Amino acid sequence: MAIVASIPNVSEGRRRDVVEQLATGLRTVPGVRLLDYSSDPAHNRSVFTLAGEPAALKAATVALFERAVALIDLRTHRGAHPRVGAVDVVPFVPIEGVTMDECVDLAREVAGAVAERFDLPVYLYEEASADPRRRNLEDIRRGGFEGLARKMTMPGWRPDFGPTSPHPSAGAAVIGARHPLIAYNINLQTNRLDVAKAVAAAVRHSSGGLRYVKAIGVALEDRRIVQVSMNLTNYERTPIFRVFDLVQREAARHGVAVLESEVIGLVPAAALMAVAAHHLQIAGFGPHMILENRLRET
Amino acid sequence: MAIVASIPNVSEGRRRDVVEQLATGLRTVPGVRLLDYSSDPAHNRSVFTLAGEPAALKAATVALFERAVALIDLRTHRGAHPRVGAVDVVPFVPIEGVTMDECVDLAREVAGAVAERFDLPVYLYEEASADPRRRNLEDIRRGGFEGLARKMTMPGWRPDFGPTSPHPSAGAAVIGARHPLIAYNINLQTNRLDVAKAVAAAVRHSSGGLRYVKAIGVALEDRRIVQVSMNLTNYERTPIFRVFDLVQREAARHGVAVLESEVIGLVPAAALMAVAAHHLQIAGFGPHMILENRLRET
Repeated sequence: MAIVASIPNVSEGRRRDVVEQLATGLRTVPGVRLLDYSSDPAHNRSVFTLAGEPAALKAATVALFERAVALIDLRTHRGAHPRVGAVDVVPFVPIEGVTMDECVDLAREVAGAVAERFDLPVYLYEEASADPRRRNLEDIRRGGFEGLARKMTMPGWRPDFGPTSPHPSAGAAVIGARHPLIAYNINLQTNRLDVAKAVAAAVRHSSGGLRYVKAIGVALEDRRIVQVSMNLTNYERTPIFRVFDLVQREAARHGVAVLESEVIGLVPAAALMAVAAHHLQIAGFGPHMILENRLRET
Repeated sequence: MAIVASIPNVSEGRRRDVVEQLATGLRTVPGVRLLDYSSDPAHNRSVFTLAGEPAALKAATVALFERAVALIDLRTHRGAHPRVGAVDVVPFVPIEGVTMDECVDLAREVAGAVAERFDLPVYLYEEASADPRRRNLEDIRRGGFEGLARKMTMPGWRPDFGPTSPHPSAGAAVIGARHPLIAYNINLQTNRLDVAKAVAAAVRHSSGGLRYVKAIGVALEDRRIVQVSMNLTNYERTPIFRVFDLVQREAARHGVAVLESEVIGLVPAAALMAVAAHHLQIAGFGPHMILENRLRET
């Protein structure tokens, strides 16, 4: 069975009844499991985590747009988080028995269907984007809903699907495929924020660190410790054990030890298996060695 | 869904047609998956790995005894491996969504059914044994088929189920429940067999080492290296990371490094997850953090 995850971000995080209507709509699509959803009122935004086979997820995504386009009007929407659409971003993530290429195909198929049905401009992003300048979500979203009409007329910003002007109330959508993202924090045995910031700067890609790491240093005031808070955007290329070891060494350079680490949300099993195989130096390690994988194959 | 594994050991490893008949019998039981089977002609013995729900495994085990009792005669059986029965040993191992107690119940139920149906004496072992002196398989099997009639008359060796004298051709059976066993080897960067033997002695339970480790030192002649070859009999109580670290330290004391490690056969996912959680110092780690586990729950 092919399992894909999808994590649609919707521009509504205050009207509880609207969020519940969207959740109910997702729950009633056969073959789709709504694993989790949560709203942030300050961002005025909700995030849903879905899993299922590609065809079922396509149906769920179309159903989500159907309700969101009817219920959300960006002309009156306010919130701290940047956004261009009522359904703002929809990533498809390969989980089990499915390739990234198949998730790219799914993203394109959904983008085409949504654009046609709702007369909505759609941008493809990350792995689904054919244009390297349009892979990065932040670049596509820059300017927000308010700047969208102007942006669409600029060179290189014609949408991949749908009309070349924004939907009046629903704006545009950004749909794509990406690797599973791991939200991973390492807590340091100190209250020195400068140490957390220095370690974060050493480890993150943007300032010279590891390719698939985003990191900031933050204080956990109530616990009187600091944290290197990270997003690992490709755990196959930049494995967790390397991130952990580098953070540990950089902290040690300031005389600070690692207290513990935290996984926020869910982590793919393969990401942790790689840590075990690394530290145990297992020769020729692969998923075929795992009993549970064999049980599900046969 | 409850998944139990069973690894019956049968006293036939030379007559290919008999082994195939037994395998075919196992394959045709609904709800049972035959994951693997292999024969050792020198031992004149075959090992089957099955998985399924308890009721299906019970049916498969009874079907296996049916054919094995009809086709195998221990009076003419010769082989290097100790054995007391045509179907010699049947362990039930909890894998997913099932407790050890439920596997003990299953072992007793199967033991009762087999004893009655084939008029066969059955000993319970490991977790299924109520008598601490009869937990150990080696103790029950000592004396073999040839010494069985005499052993059964000795104090403390009355079978748990069935008659108090051996089945004429099929002997007796040993049925029980145990933890998953991990066959785990660590290869050392040296050809000095004395180092492998010293490390094995340091790490194994029988000579003062870790409680759930069996270990020997062996030479891998063709690769000109040596190996600490181990069975880890309870990875929850004696986790793999502790075994690896101890082997590494003991080898270092001789100036020898770990080259690599090997998992023989299959390893439960939880055993490797524990290694990752240990090295990453993950706070409050549990199976609920794993994406795939959540997918299967919902």
